[in-house]
Amino acid sequence: MELGMIGLGRMGANMAQRLQRGGLEVTGFDPGAEARARLAAAGGATADSLEALVQALPSPRVLWLMVPAEAVDPVLEQLLPLLAPGDLVVDGGNSWYRHAARRAQRCGQARVAFVDCGTSGGVWGLEEGYCLMLGGEAAALARLRPALQALAPAADRGWAHVGPVGAGHFCKMVHNGIEYGMMQAYAEGFALMQKKQEFELDLAQVAEVWRHGSVVRSWLLDLSAEALQRNPGLEGIAPYVQDSGEGRWTVNEAIELEVSAPVITLSLLERLRSRESNSFADRLLAQMRSGFGGHAVKAANDGP
Amino acid sequence: MELGMIGLGRMGANMAQRLQRGGLEVTGFDPGAEARARLAAAGGATADSLEALVQALPSPRVLWLMVPAEAVDPVLEQLLPLLAPGDLVVDGGNSWYRHAARRAQRCGQARVAFVDCGTSGGVWGLEEGYCLMLGGEAAALARLRPALQALAPAADRGWAHVGPVGAGHFCKMVHNGIEYGMMQAYAEGFALMQKKQEFELDLAQVAEVWRHGSVVRSWLLDLSAEALQRNPGLEGIAPYVQDSGEGRWTVNEAIELEVSAPVITLSLLERLRSRESNSFADRLLAQMRSGFGGHAVKAANDGP
Amino acid sequence: MELGMIGLGRMGANMAQRLQRGGLEVTGFDPGAEARARLAAAGGATADSLEALVQALPSPRVLWLMVPAEAVDPVLEQLLPLLAPGDLVVDGGNSWYRHAARRAQRCGQARVAFVDCGTSGGVWGLEEGYCLMLGGEAAALARLRPALQALAPAADRGWAHVGPVGAGHFCKMVHNGIEYGMMQAYAEGFALMQKKQEFELDLAQVAEVWRHGSVVRSWLLDLSAEALQRNPGLEGIAPYVQDSGEGRWTVNEAIELEVSAPVITLSLLERLRSRESNSFADRLLAQMRSGFGGHAVKAANDGP
Amino acid sequence: MELGMIGLGRMGANMAQRLQRGGLEVTGFDPGAEARARLAAAGGATADSLEALVQALPSPRVLWLMVPAEAVDPVLEQLLPLLAPGDLVVDGGNSWYRHAARRAQRCGQARVAFVDCGTSGGVWGLEEGYCLMLGGEAAALARLRPALQALAPAADRGWAHVGPVGAGHFCKMVHNGIEYGMMQAYAEGFALMQKKQEFELDLAQVAEVWRHGSVVRSWLLDLSAEALQRNPGLEGIAPYVQDSGEGRWTVNEAIELEVSAPVITLSLLERLRSRESNSFADRLLAQMRSGFGGHAVKAANDGP
Repeated sequence: MELGMIGLGRMGANMAQRLQRGGLEVTGFDPGAEARARLAAAGGATADSLEALVQALPSPRVLWLMVPAEAVDPVLEQLLPLLAPGDLVVDGGNSWYRHAARRAQRCGQARVAFVDCGTSGGVWGLEEGYCLMLGGEAAALARLRPALQALAPAADRGWAHVGPVGAGHFCKMVHNGIEYGMMQAYAEGFALMQKKQEFELDLAQVAEVWRHGSVVRSWLLDLSAEALQRNPGLEGIAPYVQDSGEGRWTVNEAIELEVSAPVITLSLLERLRSRESNSFADRLLAQMRSGFGGHAVKAANDGP
Repeated sequence: MELGMIGLGRMGANMAQRLQRGGLEVTGFDPGAEARARLAAAGGATADSLEALVQALPSPRVLWLMVPAEAVDPVLEQLLPLLAPGDLVVDGGNSWYRHAARRAQRCGQARVAFVDCGTSGGVWGLEEGYCLMLGGEAAALARLRPALQALAPAADRGWAHVGPVGAGHFCKMVHNGIEYGMMQAYAEGFALMQKKQEFELDLAQVAEVWRHGSVVRSWLLDLSAEALQRNPGLEGIAPYVQDSGEGRWTVNEAIELEVSAPVITLSLLERLRSRESNSFADRLLAQMRSGFGGHAVKAANDGP
Repeated sequence: MELGMIGLGRMGANMAQRLQRGGLEVTGFDPGAEARARLAAAGGATADSLEALVQALPSPRVLWLMVPAEAVDPVLEQLLPLLAPGDLVVDGGNSWYRHAARRAQRCGQARVAFVDCGTSGGVWGLEEGYCLMLGGEAAALARLRPALQALAPAADRGWAHVGPVGAGHFCKMVHNGIEYGMMQAYAEGFALMQKKQEFELDLAQVAEVWRHGSVVRSWLLDLSAEALQRNPGLEGIAPYVQDSGEGRWTVNEAIELEVSAPVITLSLLERLRSRESNSFADRLLAQMRSGFGGHAVKAANDGP
Repeated sequence: MELGMIGLGRMGANMAQRLQRGGLEVTGFDPGAEARARLAAAGGATADSLEALVQALPSPRVLWLMVPAEAVDPVLEQLLPLLAPGDLVVDGGNSWYRHAARRAQRCGQARVAFVDCGTSGGVWGLEEGYCLMLGGEAAALARLRPALQALAPAADRGWAHVGPVGAGHFCKMVHNGIEYGMMQAYAEGFALMQKKQEFELDLAQVAEVWRHGSVVRSWLLDLSAEALQRNPGLEGIAPYVQDSGEGRWTVNEAIELEVSAPVITLSLLERLRSRESNSFADRLLAQMRSGFGGHAVKAANDGP
């Protein structure tokens, strides 16, 4: 099987390599020359333009997009005129699932098939394989099977056709919401042990022992154990946590579906909170306490 | 009616004055000479020692404690040997309600009556009157009626015999839990408006208009409007919010009674959060994201 | 001053009456004959159609919309062709603030002025006056002054020009978010007292005493005290809490502005939770506990 | 090595068997004849009384307690007079870590060593091994090494000496707090997918695919996948989630240490919430909405 990978960032480049290791022929394209060069240096074939990429692929073509969410529509608009009926486009990035149906329809007008693929596994996917949640038509997915088997951790495990167009990205969105909650649960637990100074706990040791036989064993714990081993005090890291959108979508979706999801929601809010400095809310609280109770307010320029 | 006020801090001194304005005879005692001097300067009678205070009062005596929670037991132990059967002790401070029954029993051994009184109103109580929630025996409360009528905003309103010993401080504890939740709700709302820069809202104006006819009008809003008027940007105030115990008791009580109280609970947690610097949890979250997703971590010494 | 009130539901009909009491001439329209008849019975003037309403008003006209959020656009489309340059439309309902700019522009094309007005006060507004937060041009607001003074609790208090178009509904949205948080705080506190059976607290009494001098006194507390007085066990009321949209908008807005608002958010989630029956999440939790710990699961058809 | 296992419930009986399989000699005791019979039927040695158990063991003895938290003190009081200096007691149950120091001291008076051991793994531990977090003196732990190696999933992995007396149960407590958070995160995510009817997701399939290569893979997910496979609709299970104490201890500890742990806390609260029926708080909320907004209240006897 042969396919074109569009977007050679952290995810796309690694996936191209894993596909090649799996015996597939992959040609990669990225607007950045540096990204193309990195893949070439790793032994991958590259094309210098979308046009060149499309021409390099045999018909019917398979194009796999691993581009930022906001780039999917522009790339599609550029790509579709180059494609022919029977070609297939996979959106493997972190797109909002609600865009999938519209994009499938847009592709359908050109008789191009569209599959949305939620992709989990991060930078470890190259070695450990990716988890792939796919939405779309069965016929389209059947054509992707060799690629899915190569990308997944094992041929028959780690990819699934979860439903119609949109269902793949929907499951990935929920996956990330759960991920936020799990991460926050671990983070709170380790912070609690770190604060309990009387026991002088070795957090890396605790994380390591939990990896074996405990109820909380998980891959995120594996990573945490490794990180705490390497940098027990988490020195040099700012307490500043980004979020990349799926968490917000999950929270909004839960509210819209009227499902109470307090833990996923609070996990997102804690990330927002981590990025607030000089919180207005907290200053108003301090002022209110002073206002009715005469409690002293800590001055802004006092040290911690 | 005549009574002795023990503890002449922010609350006790003001209450002594309000009682005097209400026509009662009050003698105040505080271990601090300065506190005694302040009351004396305001025209109040003072005693230099617990012994002197007790001797200055006619039998049967009424002693009103407005001391820090941790001082109640020591003061009681010092006081009880000086008292006579028939005397009455009121604990008007922020004591944990679970101590009340034991203290009532301890007093009972000396045939001294004990009343727990939850007191709300803060520094404004001197002018506006205090809200008093009382627990204990009806006979004991009957003796306090002139004092209660003088302390409350109106003779027949603002004090209540809510139940047996402990019930007064229990209601005050819950009152403070609610207070945390209300404060946090306002703080979040004003913070949201402050962040919405496109409308250039004048928060003092919004607070002021809400005071008249809106569903969220309240005394805490009155205070907030006044504070935002005086200092619209809340300049000079650190985003650092103390808590004085009742919120924690409320949260623990809710868990013990198996009542889900998420808003009161989160209000407490936000106060804890406001005092955390360099959160270990947030650093671990940032590290985890980097660990699986390759997302850059913000360095600790980067600016905001 | 003369104006037309469109929408004679709970809010519109009462506002029409308060305006009339304030000396203004009001003609009301509602598509429902019954609603028109109710206002007529209360002595108000009514029109049988939008056309009739517009014709009944002197130029330049003032039309005040109190219609459901989803009806604003349809009514506007019907109304605008009937209006003349210089007329003024007020949207006084619970519209999402983001629609205001578009509507103002749409009106502007017809040289009709547009003002968004967040209205608080509920069914008590007729007697106590409404709190009005207004967004729009100063000139348009100046024309509304007599109406605002009549609707507000006092001529010069309870209405404010808070910013440009959209700002009025934005402030009302945040107001409702705060309202959710305050309500939830009270609800949790009273539930805690209700569960504390050993003190046999009289919740109506506690609510009543808090109304006088306490830190948590508020209008919502006044209502709660009255409700608990009337129905101490809240008998006959299902534990089922609706929400009407502003809370969701507030939560989404907070996330978009990256302001952590846990209490407002959790207040919304508790309302969603109150409406869930046979929660799938809780069943999965029970199953998981059984799965790893061998803990018995409660069977679905067991009683409570 | 030889040891006595006291308490032959789900955990103790399985641990006795795993120790035997690992080549250790174990004699079990339980006050319940049935529990003893079960172990005997599985080929284990049992004693009919604590006295018989103690006499059956060679000196210096090792006694391993797997009894409910509230039984530890009574059992210890019965056991200590039967022991001799040099004996060793392990508390392997879910005890509150704050009791460990006192118990160690109590044992120390009899020159008996005391080790607290947090044990994770549940009913799967027999086959997969247990995760063991131990607090106490190094010398005591050294004597336990053969037992620890047999109980853990692999000789050198899955047990750790995490600190002084109390540290073992402390780590187990935090472990369970994290477990609550992870479980709740999964539960919310699956509930969201279940509610999203348009995609007709097969939750067992999604859980299964996530097990391979995804960021959220974990042992709890393995269990969930298996449960959803067996009973996709979770039929017959009440949405009623028990908690067994460690979560509460974790929440209280976090508050006491002033660590904000919203996700662990909310996970506990959701369990409390799952067990509330006819929530007073929600009824008061519904009543308040009706009180100010005239919104209809759902009657208590209406269907869902």
